Amino acid sequence: MKRNVLIIGAGGVAQVVAHKCAHHNDVLGDLHIASRTKAKCDAIVASVQEKAAMKVPGPFSTHQLDAMDSAAVAALIRDTGCQIVINVGSAFINKYVLEACIETGAAYIDTAIHEEPDKICETPPWYANYEWKRKEACREASVTAILGAGFDPGVVNAYARLAADDYVEEVESIDIVDINAGSHGKYFATNFDPEINFREFTGTVYAWQNGNWTENKMFEVGREWDLPVVGKQKAYMSGHDEIHSLAANYPQADVRFWMGFGDHYINVFTVLKSLGLLSEKPVTTAEGQEVIPLKVVKAVLPDPASLAPGYTGKTCIGDLVKGKTGGKPVEVFIYNVADHKDAYEEVGSQGISYTAGVPPVAAAILVAGGTWDTGTMVNVEELDPHPFLGLLNVMGLPTSIRDANGDRPLSFD
Amino acid sequence: MKRNVLIIGAGGVAQVVAHKCAHHNDVLGDLHIASRTKAKCDAIVASVQEKAAMKVPGPFSTHQLDAMDSAAVAALIRDTGCQIVINVGSAFINKYVLEACIETGAAYIDTAIHEEPDKICETPPWYANYEWKRKEACREASVTAILGAGFDPGVVNAYARLAADDYVEEVESIDIVDINAGSHGKYFATNFDPEINFREFTGTVYAWQNGNWTENKMFEVGREWDLPVVGKQKAYMSGHDEIHSLAANYPQADVRFWMGFGDHYINVFTVLKSLGLLSEKPVTTAEGQEVIPLKVVKAVLPDPASLAPGYTGKTCIGDLVKGKTGGKPVEVFIYNVADHKDAYEEVGSQGISYTAGVPPVAAAILVAGGTWDTGTMVNVEELDPHPFLGLLNVMGLPTSIRDANGDRPLSFD
Repeated sequence: MKRNVLIIGAGGVAQVVAHKCAHHNDVLGDLHIASRTKAKCDAIVASVQEKAAMKVPGPFSTHQLDAMDSAAVAALIRDTGCQIVINVGSAFINKYVLEACIETGAAYIDTAIHEEPDKICETPPWYANYEWKRKEACREASVTAILGAGFDPGVVNAYARLAADDYVEEVESIDIVDINAGSHGKYFATNFDPEINFREFTGTVYAWQNGNWTENKMFEVGREWDLPVVGKQKAYMSGHDEIHSLAANYPQADVRFWMGFGDHYINVFTVLKSLGLLSEKPVTTAEGQEVIPLKVVKAVLPDPASLAPGYTGKTCIGDLVKGKTGGKPVEVFIYNVADHKDAYEEVGSQGISYTAGVPPVAAAILVAGGTWDTGTMVNVEELDPHPFLGLLNVMGLPTSIRDANGDRPLSFD
Repeated sequence: MKRNVLIIGAGGVAQVVAHKCAHHNDVLGDLHIASRTKAKCDAIVASVQEKAAMKVPGPFSTHQLDAMDSAAVAALIRDTGCQIVINVGSAFINKYVLEACIETGAAYIDTAIHEEPDKICETPPWYANYEWKRKEACREASVTAILGAGFDPGVVNAYARLAADDYVEEVESIDIVDINAGSHGKYFATNFDPEINFREFTGTVYAWQNGNWTENKMFEVGREWDLPVVGKQKAYMSGHDEIHSLAANYPQADVRFWMGFGDHYINVFTVLKSLGLLSEKPVTTAEGQEVIPLKVVKAVLPDPASLAPGYTGKTCIGDLVKGKTGGKPVEVFIYNVADHKDAYEEVGSQGISYTAGVPPVAAAILVAGGTWDTGTMVNVEELDPHPFLGLLNVMGLPTSIRDANGDRPLSFD
């Protein structure tokens, strides 16, 4: 049994995490939120209070924190008595927060892989570059570290495990498909931090196929999908975190990730990338100023959190898992559909933040209760998916399945 | 009779000016070139020497100069004994260089209107904002100042005057059309300073129609033109310097400017503008750095001078002048066709720089000889166009005409 949660980060996903932690503070205990800018934490806690989101009376404190300073993170963990850390800050801080958890014994949960600011798309498997190097240290210190526990990575890893456990004896392929059929009404915006969003697509597209890492360029491989609720949608093979752990845990299967993009997104992305404006390397202006173009693009784009009020439409994210059962071909599509407007009404965020922010809170509840308190580092597909997906069914992210027996909601009682 | 020329600026146009001054140093006298970066001047003079471009033996000296410091410009004019200044530096320096000419008595020639870095597209007529305010001072000091003596503005103003003098009794409309049908082989590049190029198209599109300034947005009004040599080409109504003097000198006529753009240019421009990346106002990055987006876009784009070696194809720039002669409708298209490759072979620059850089040297020769040594400030259409166009015929920019009598070269002997 672990109690008291420290949320690190204060963006759109942190807003969702805060609200969902508040909904479950009876089991999670005291709540804390920390970020480089304390005012952003204060605004999040104010929105929690405004919606009267705390299930039972209890503290929700805010803190200023430089999360790239492991000692400061460890000190805050000790000062607050938090036994669970939910890291939903920038992808650049993961390793520092993880070190602080290893030092203090707190459980660690994140939703995206660690990145170094000046490196894009390192060698696969990505988890081996930073996270897995600390696996042994977690084991020795009996520290629970649940990597990539957002939606994708996260829930989609649980879907893959569910398919392998319950529906497909011999898994031959796992295709994760992420479609946002919503509309934010802006000329152009990214649904989360533009810097991280673009970094995902400027590097090599790694996939695991026929037992090897394969390499493509972004938007090189596309296909149309016909999905529940959102209908026919074009998606493109993209690099993504979960490929890098699923390939290790299901090495016999092809593992690919497909992200939906409209022609307008692709056009804007292509122009910016072709001109060099998505580069993470500095350029020098005629006046002699050193500037990283990607950071300027981020500065001119809308703040993803600002999209929430006007966002309409739905997302569909799921796993198409193919293989054989009893020697016969079988395939299942396990998925969730989320609604942007519903998300905004419940927690004040858009659907992309919602799908990313609810799952780590479900993971925290399972850690708090002991079910997922593994005492070591794991990726989500290494854990029993049933309690996780069962919790998500009642927390706002229900799971459905479409297979030869039809299209239907799944329950995990 | 004036002698000795100071060229200010060291970009692609300055390269052409330097070579063309060298071709005529027998009448122009000593040559000097000055810029913020002396090394760029040295490179230009080296290319002049390499092509053995000096007509007669004589000096061609290089200087470091902050051209936004009027006193420094005046000192250099005095030190070098230059009586003619050809200003082909950034559009931000004009007023400072003009002040120095007024102070020293040197003749002033430029090719584009003055701009303030933080202002785009000021109220029309643009010349009234900076240049014409100094007209009286030029008259009092008997200083010759020839404004906008490049191709457009410049030669196209002379074409308008030629049409009015020789072909169309009552001018009813002047449509200037600028088509670059060349190819530089890059994903995207501007043909001159990207900062100035984009600034032309981010503001209001002013035209003079029915005796009033009219306002449109860029790419709002487009039409297809069928021009000599380059054929059918789409061009869009754009703001441009020469409209602002021609409207004052031919107020009874409509005056419009049309710039040719391919769909790719428009797409890239639209993406950058819509995102706010062409803004001249600073933005602040997440890290707190103040940056002007337009300067970052400039930094990532190819240096226009670098396009020259691979540039192929032709430009066609001309004036369609309509009106009545003897009460009957008449129209003439007076134009030049230039070739990118020919320009590179002759002076090491691409065609856009060539068309902009040859005319101010022709103007300097006419000032040196006294024909255009007006002792006051003028726009090009206020001067007799015949000697100017006659000189350009032999300097590489021949004039043709297309009217009811056919399509033919013009001579001005």
